[in-house]
Amino acid sequence: MAAEQDPEALAAARPLLTDLYQATMALGYWNAGRAREQAEFELFFRGCPFGGAFALAAGLRDCVRFLRAFRLQDADVQFLASVLPPDTDPAFFEHLRALDCSDVTVRALPEGSLAFPGVPLLQVCGPLLVVQLLETPLLCLVSYASLIATNASRLRLIAGPKKRLLEMGLRRAQGPDGGLTASTYSYLGGFDGSSNVLAGQLRGVPLAGTLAHSFITSFLGTEVPPDPMLAPAASQGPRVDLAACAEAWLDRVCAHLGLGVQEPHRGERAAFVAYALAFPRAFQGLLDTYSVQRSGLPNFLAVALALGELGYRAVGVRLDSGDLLQQAQEIRRVFRSISAQFQMPWLESVSITVSNNIDEEELTRLAQEGSEVNVIGIGTNVVTCPRQPSLGCVYKLVSVGGQPRMKLTEDPEKQTLPGSKAAFRLLGADGSPLLDLLQLAEEAPPRAGQELRVWPRGAQGACRVRPAHLCEPLPSLAESRAFAQLSLSRLSPEHKQLQQPAPYRVALSDKLQALVARLRAGGSS
Amino acid sequence: MAAEQDPEALAAARPLLTDLYQATMALGYWNAGRAREQAEFELFFRGCPFGGAFALAAGLRDCVRFLRAFRLQDADVQFLASVLPPDTDPAFFEHLRALDCSDVTVRALPEGSLAFPGVPLLQVCGPLLVVQLLETPLLCLVSYASLIATNASRLRLIAGPKKRLLEMGLRRAQGPDGGLTASTYSYLGGFDGSSNVLAGQLRGVPLAGTLAHSFITSFLGTEVPPDPMLAPAASQGPRVDLAACAEAWLDRVCAHLGLGVQEPHRGERAAFVAYALAFPRAFQGLLDTYSVQRSGLPNFLAVALALGELGYRAVGVRLDSGDLLQQAQEIRRVFRSISAQFQMPWLESVSITVSNNIDEEELTRLAQEGSEVNVIGIGTNVVTCPRQPSLGCVYKLVSVGGQPRMKLTEDPEKQTLPGSKAAFRLLGADGSPLLDLLQLAEEAPPRAGQELRVWPRGAQGACRVRPAHLCEPLPSLAESRAFAQLSLSRLSPEHKQLQQPAPYRVALSDKLQALVARLRAGGSS
Repeated sequence: MAAEQDPEALAAARPLLTDLYQATMALGYWNAGRAREQAEFELFFRGCPFGGAFALAAGLRDCVRFLRAFRLQDADVQFLASVLPPDTDPAFFEHLRALDCSDVTVRALPEGSLAFPGVPLLQVCGPLLVVQLLETPLLCLVSYASLIATNASRLRLIAGPKKRLLEMGLRRAQGPDGGLTASTYSYLGGFDGSSNVLAGQLRGVPLAGTLAHSFITSFLGTEVPPDPMLAPAASQGPRVDLAACAEAWLDRVCAHLGLGVQEPHRGERAAFVAYALAFPRAFQGLLDTYSVQRSGLPNFLAVALALGELGYRAVGVRLDSGDLLQQAQEIRRVFRSISAQFQMPWLESVSITVSNNIDEEELTRLAQEGSEVNVIGIGTNVVTCPRQPSLGCVYKLVSVGGQPRMKLTEDPEKQTLPGSKAAFRLLGADGSPLLDLLQLAEEAPPRAGQELRVWPRGAQGACRVRPAHLCEPLPSLAESRAFAQLSLSRLSPEHKQLQQPAPYRVALSDKLQALVARLRAGGSS
Repeated sequence: MAAEQDPEALAAARPLLTDLYQATMALGYWNAGRAREQAEFELFFRGCPFGGAFALAAGLRDCVRFLRAFRLQDADVQFLASVLPPDTDPAFFEHLRALDCSDVTVRALPEGSLAFPGVPLLQVCGPLLVVQLLETPLLCLVSYASLIATNASRLRLIAGPKKRLLEMGLRRAQGPDGGLTASTYSYLGGFDGSSNVLAGQLRGVPLAGTLAHSFITSFLGTEVPPDPMLAPAASQGPRVDLAACAEAWLDRVCAHLGLGVQEPHRGERAAFVAYALAFPRAFQGLLDTYSVQRSGLPNFLAVALALGELGYRAVGVRLDSGDLLQQAQEIRRVFRSISAQFQMPWLESVSITVSNNIDEEELTRLAQEGSEVNVIGIGTNVVTCPRQPSLGCVYKLVSVGGQPRMKLTEDPEKQTLPGSKAAFRLLGADGSPLLDLLQLAEEAPPRAGQELRVWPRGAQGACRVRPAHLCEPLPSLAESRAFAQLSLSRLSPEHKQLQQPAPYRVALSDKLQALVARLRAGGSS
């Protein structure tokens, strides 16, 4: 894919979006005559995010786009020359100018896969110098995408399958493409759509959105609309003055609700009428600009009933403050009562959307049995992942020239698993994951039905396992989403349990375990 | 500035990076004949981040770039047409095609200003339709930039003026330009530099970086360097085999430290030699790949002393695991002892850099009196702001057609301050901020020395204040940084106190207070 033809080229990471030490190390490798040695890095995380039991792998499509377009521009090379020693051999810069990723191969967990600690999300092979340079951008692209997808999937598991979940966090995101990434990968993780128009345009994420408080406060009620007339939905019969019709309905609504007809804010009503004139088939009211019960709700009902008379059905209301669950129950009660009173049965089931700093705890409350909330908009708490705003992925060298490499630091958590590896997900008879097996690339793949001796990480000894199936790959955003949902549905209840980590097993093969032991023993010699 | 000539055009936000409801409201305004009415929005935050007493305003330059380039492309308009009702008047899309920000004016707190709750960071005036469309991108650009600058300034206040603080969080950032924004605005907030090459190239942020564990583990010690010879620093005298020279020094270092000469890892030493050959004037060692005391430190010393013999001075070491403070003390002790033993006095003061998940608590420890740490690299905890990953800025309509607008929602925290306003910072005789005064735009500006009656927000009544000075503006990243540091230095100790908020006063003028009271009383009528 040529960069010029890629509608997302503007959003893609650039080669210099990297840490300076990648460039200094590149010079070090080049100077040591090692730039083209074949090396392999693994990108993985060390612990599941949010204290949970799984993560979803995501960001692969962004990595592929980045790798395809990877090329240092003249200005990039000149900039690097300005920060490297002045006597650096010009041939090094020639080497950089010619670099691309045509000799780089990537194996990856399919987009949307369940992922577990220590199992590579990406395995990146190629010339040492270039695969080193890729470290920071690949981490940047995978880590946040996977974090967001995981966060979204946790929220989906709490909400259950029926509530609509909308991502609305662009304004709170950490930078513009933080927002684009959040919208894309919250959809992957199980949200139904986003408010982010760019995510709709570039990634095909379903969009949602209606109106904000500013639209409502912009109206005083003294404005004169250029055309207040609306034709009936079926396009038969005369056009009607919607504002006048809504005023007539307001009298009846207020009488039924026991409100003075002067109480509902006339500017708010004018805003609702203006919105309904523009979107007669998709009218929604935002209820809490002035007072939900005394203004927003009766104004919404007046306009919705006026539309109803013309054969249009209002689609929803939104609440953005106060006790969302309790208000939803009260609003549904009013909908039912008005629906019965005026024989508008569709009104009973008008959708109630809520938003306002909803987190896992509030979502649990809103999703409880009997809740009248239909749609839940989540912003800050999905896009910024406040419980853990970084997945903490790492990218570690595992082999050079076919020889295993291992970091043996005194901090055992930071030790790496050496060698070029293959990873397999072993599944039970019902398709649920049993464990992830890491073995050396040279070993024969495990077979379904075969009994295996494996070394679970963190355990003292080996154990035996007999997988019924092995896992398989998938593509595209929508398909990846279905894949993620399917995979999640097959997790055992302990894994879905969000408050504490369940012990999903990642295990090493006999040969890999032996290699680790050998390199550890050889320690610092 | 034309978009094609702007080296950052690629990184800039795009018009469709917005919430769908901005587009639906735009149609609502257009349909109501109100697209060109003059409106004013204010962008502000409601509470200081991190439970602190101030924020730094930032992101203005990104906003200016965005506004200058703001223009919907044909593909953008076509996309909007695809998500709006099919019978939408084509003239609306023509209007969108012709939109730009030439009729929009922005007043703003200067980049790097201290900012307090409720005081506008931006005041955006222009045609209602376009200033509404700008809401989401402006929030996205200002909110995170200001959050990062504030977070960085808190870390700077803890570290004190002498420690070097480096931002190293690109790999943990929430998306590519989350990383670019973090690097830029952590510098504004008081960091000394960043590892992010793109921030150096595009924004002039000073860069830092040396080598990672992968560089070290990539060497076994059996590699044959193409050219192991190094000329002396003064370029006089014969070239020397640096590896051989380091081996000779290793014997002496190990003898002095009581280590076996086989203990230090030969691959690590080969990596240090390779790095030193590429960067003889900027040699640094990363010490914790195998064992700091038994391998990294003696290997570093052997290479540093070999370089020293040739007249080069090693510049530093880095630690990335374990107890960083304690190890720094031990390493400094060894530096002093080796320096005395071999009469290399410069070795005593070689810089010690530490990194590894450093947060405010750990930084407090590392910055304590007597600490031997010189440079502190912070990643995740500066770029993702885990204590509060979003500033929660809002963008509220305050006037249309010169008439004040107010959101009166039943949640008092979400009520807005109506009217087109001017804000003034009143300063004491020493230049320290006394309070921020919000008044109506039509009021005469306060004068230094004048006694004013003002209404502090959150207080019951009015009080009197007599400012010695009023505050003034500034430009550019480096100047803004200096401005921010100066402003911070003038905050009172209670404001710098990071654990709890100090009651910095934001107050309303008599006239603004009266307007609020009038609109509140007129409530929902």
